[in-house]
Amino acid sequence: MKIALAQLNYIIGDIEGNTAKIIGEIEKAKAEKADLVIFSELAICGYPPKDLLDYPSFILRCEKGLEEIQEVTEGIGVLVGGPSWTKLEKGKKLYNSAFFYSDKKLIRRIDKTLLPTYDIFDEYRYFHYNELFECVEFKGEKIAVTICEDLWNLDEEKLYVSTPMDELMKQNPTVMINLSGSPYSYNHVEKRRKRMQLNAKTYGLPLFYVNQVGGNTDILFDGGSMFINRNGDIAEECEFYKEDFKVINWDSSHTYEDNHEDYYDYDIGLIHDALVMGVKDYFGKVGFKKALLGSSGGIDSAVVHAIAADALGAENIKAIMMPSKYSSSGSVDDAVKLADNLKSPYSIIPIKKPFDAFNETLEEEFEGTEPNVTEENLQARSRGIMLMAISNKFGSMVLNTSNKSESAVGYSTLYGDMCGGLSVIGDLYKEQVYELARFINRYGEVIPYEIVSKEPSAELRHDQKDSDSLPPYPLLDKILFYYIEEKKGWQEIVAMKIEGLDEALVRKIIRKVDRNEYKRFQASPTLRISHKAFGFGRRMPIVARYNH
Amino acid sequence: MKIALAQLNYIIGDIEGNTAKIIGEIEKAKAEKADLVIFSELAICGYPPKDLLDYPSFILRCEKGLEEIQEVTEGIGVLVGGPSWTKLEKGKKLYNSAFFYSDKKLIRRIDKTLLPTYDIFDEYRYFHYNELFECVEFKGEKIAVTICEDLWNLDEEKLYVSTPMDELMKQNPTVMINLSGSPYSYNHVEKRRKRMQLNAKTYGLPLFYVNQVGGNTDILFDGGSMFINRNGDIAEECEFYKEDFKVINWDSSHTYEDNHEDYYDYDIGLIHDALVMGVKDYFGKVGFKKALLGSSGGIDSAVVHAIAADALGAENIKAIMMPSKYSSSGSVDDAVKLADNLKSPYSIIPIKKPFDAFNETLEEEFEGTEPNVTEENLQARSRGIMLMAISNKFGSMVLNTSNKSESAVGYSTLYGDMCGGLSVIGDLYKEQVYELARFINRYGEVIPYEIVSKEPSAELRHDQKDSDSLPPYPLLDKILFYYIEEKKGWQEIVAMKIEGLDEALVRKIIRKVDRNEYKRFQASPTLRISHKAFGFGRRMPIVARYNH
Repeated sequence: MKIALAQLNYIIGDIEGNTAKIIGEIEKAKAEKADLVIFSELAICGYPPKDLLDYPSFILRCEKGLEEIQEVTEGIGVLVGGPSWTKLEKGKKLYNSAFFYSDKKLIRRIDKTLLPTYDIFDEYRYFHYNELFECVEFKGEKIAVTICEDLWNLDEEKLYVSTPMDELMKQNPTVMINLSGSPYSYNHVEKRRKRMQLNAKTYGLPLFYVNQVGGNTDILFDGGSMFINRNGDIAEECEFYKEDFKVINWDSSHTYEDNHEDYYDYDIGLIHDALVMGVKDYFGKVGFKKALLGSSGGIDSAVVHAIAADALGAENIKAIMMPSKYSSSGSVDDAVKLADNLKSPYSIIPIKKPFDAFNETLEEEFEGTEPNVTEENLQARSRGIMLMAISNKFGSMVLNTSNKSESAVGYSTLYGDMCGGLSVIGDLYKEQVYELARFINRYGEVIPYEIVSKEPSAELRHDQKDSDSLPPYPLLDKILFYYIEEKKGWQEIVAMKIEGLDEALVRKIIRKVDRNEYKRFQASPTLRISHKAFGFGRRMPIVARYNH
Repeated sequence: MKIALAQLNYIIGDIEGNTAKIIGEIEKAKAEKADLVIFSELAICGYPPKDLLDYPSFILRCEKGLEEIQEVTEGIGVLVGGPSWTKLEKGKKLYNSAFFYSDKKLIRRIDKTLLPTYDIFDEYRYFHYNELFECVEFKGEKIAVTICEDLWNLDEEKLYVSTPMDELMKQNPTVMINLSGSPYSYNHVEKRRKRMQLNAKTYGLPLFYVNQVGGNTDILFDGGSMFINRNGDIAEECEFYKEDFKVINWDSSHTYEDNHEDYYDYDIGLIHDALVMGVKDYFGKVGFKKALLGSSGGIDSAVVHAIAADALGAENIKAIMMPSKYSSSGSVDDAVKLADNLKSPYSIIPIKKPFDAFNETLEEEFEGTEPNVTEENLQARSRGIMLMAISNKFGSMVLNTSNKSESAVGYSTLYGDMCGGLSVIGDLYKEQVYELARFINRYGEVIPYEIVSKEPSAELRHDQKDSDSLPPYPLLDKILFYYIEEKKGWQEIVAMKIEGLDEALVRKIIRKVDRNEYKRFQASPTLRISHKAFGFGRRMPIVARYNH
């Protein structure tokens, strides 16, 4: 039996485009004489469609797309994901389904049982759970079809009461197929492979696993679709961060050789590629070609510049240097050197005039007060306005250059350096930004070495250093990681007895994180690379007293 | 049996404060010789605690608070809401529970069965569902205790498969108690009363229903706790928008007279009071006393000013008039008259200098281009920066003055008029803003009549009127309501054959709504008064092609 894995990059809501794309791959599979071609979860509408699912007119359009697909299944089997009405008297109205078509007929609709509702996932918001388990007979095989999370309840700590494959095994299937929508995070690649290998071994069945690929706003899908032997070896693996199409000549009596690349729990190269794809797809899918960013001569904007250049072409990135009287002489030089290294256009536009104009205009209002953080913010906001004006005038999108350490403790100015349409490195702690810079420079200087080696400074007052108000980044990042990713309270972090971390410091930092929820609420979407990014997957109250 | 309803305003995460408050009411109930005092859902931590529930240290603190409460239940029954560990091998780790204490003992823990996961609700994100139904025997009564949504599955279209009261009825209870966390929306007050009355009638049992009160960021809880006769009459009703404590001398053989105020499906007075409470609690709970806002002489800022004055005291609201060369002469005069009517301080700060400074600074960059929306946005953003600077300098919070019609179609400037810590009228369509202005003026002029009667204009270029780029608001608001609140697609709206709405217009407006998702993503929290507000309860993809 020849089985094709179709790993595609869908646009959410673009039913017509997605349908055309799926039909194109079906034709390709037919040309290669495949018996069956498999697409990913909710392929018809792209994943995650979010509250578009609340619109009956949207479901109707999905149904039309699926009908078109059904019409081209003469002589081939097609498994494709889409929403369907439950038509039950009770419960939510929709299923998250897989449609199995062949010879222009719907052979079977399989509905998802386990509905992830945590972190960035909201599936029980939309879908009713399946309770009916039946394998699909096709060309002499008995296929156990499941959808994404359905294969994830193999933990010692089970998040769900039922395990769909345990039910399906009662019918003695000969092979497993899983339609997936599994997003990237830096510790998820290995986890996903191991989990799928565990399924193959546990049930003693080969597994065909199809994931989608591409960036959908903040969420990055990395692909990596697989064919796994019944012994758990990964015999075929699709590309990461790219569309891919693989036809597997599968003989059920044969065991295929293990044939996948080595992987690591944490790989800065994969993070890099995920961010490049995220920028590329954000721009491509909304129809933007050009970006601009404030280039300060610091490490954050340098890394964002380099990634954006990879994603969109250096000539499409405009760097704007906006020095003030507090900028060190090196700042502009370093930023210019970076633009020259990358071959990006740039402009140097000092902020003196608007900054002075604001101060003059507010002189009377501020009479009798002393300069404080207000004037620092005025600089950051003058820069933000300038970027937005250039964006408006030339139709380019402002890239935000904040990192996760800054966003966490609120070391950033709302409507100032927090502005932009997309945050590129907002899910990377400062130490990870340095790591990424070294990765970008792995073949030689792209980011000037001066930028990588200088001490971090916001340059909003004379001789300012980040370390004036923050602990050293290696310490800060540790506290933040345990608090945000690992959900440890201050007592637990203090109890770890990490060198340099005392109770006062830990509590001070955690309080900063909590108190800056209001700022992050108004932040731009942030490319997600960790298992707990700020944004949609971390939902904290703003008005609250945590007393951490 | 004397039963006390304790309707309180909790601060989310402030376990120590909430515990003290609950203990205070228990003492009050004891003093009034009550047999039982009832608190609302998740009272110990405030509702909704969101991802704080993901922190084991947070659950531990809740448990400590509950232990303290248990210690003061000598001689009285106490029903209070809080999270609890399921200790099950499978499924989510927490229950949303009600703890029934008496004489320092836990008599029973009741867990929530139906977990709302739609709109602003995310309960299946955190909680496992109950499957065990048992009434509680207390002082000769058999009490069916349920938690909020548990009483809401009486629709013809049932959102859940099981209905907890149907199960509990098998044990012949004599009375129902519901611990609730039911937020306000303008069509929810009547709905909630009717649903609770329907429960009493359906099961032929009296119902004691306790809700919380207060604003928690965007979500407004209106209170209105009730005691309902077995015939469905509302015999007692607690205050709206205020803490309340009512002791009911209940004789199970007696039917009490209907004794609640008339209500209406839509009541602008309730909307007004909800917004006042929302502003008051947002400020009070984060510890801010003073607000400021850009006062343009238009209807939106006028209504926000009046509401904020009610919430925080007019003397604590500073109005900033920021005229440009495009401002009509009346604009500042009208805004000044408003401030004088309310007795609020104000400053007039023209934006000419910063606006000119930006234009000069960008002259070279913009060489060869024509003025366009860039310069309009520069004005709005110069104003935004000024407000933020004053906010920073004096520790007051900027109130956002956008309305829902504007946010919907993106008729607003990101980081300009979209700035602020809280959007007060962002869930009111323009027509509702006018209605609210008339309500505010019901006893005479508060908002100058000139402001109410003038034609809406953003005044960002000469002779600009909103109607230059938008259809008349009554038409616009209709399209928006059907699209946003009622989730109708363009075909369905066109099929309604509403006068003045043709296909081209409907599709154009819907496209505007979809395309401006990216702006709203960075908007401030918005006080929610409708059943579909922008923000947490409406989760739309940003990068998408809806093709509506």
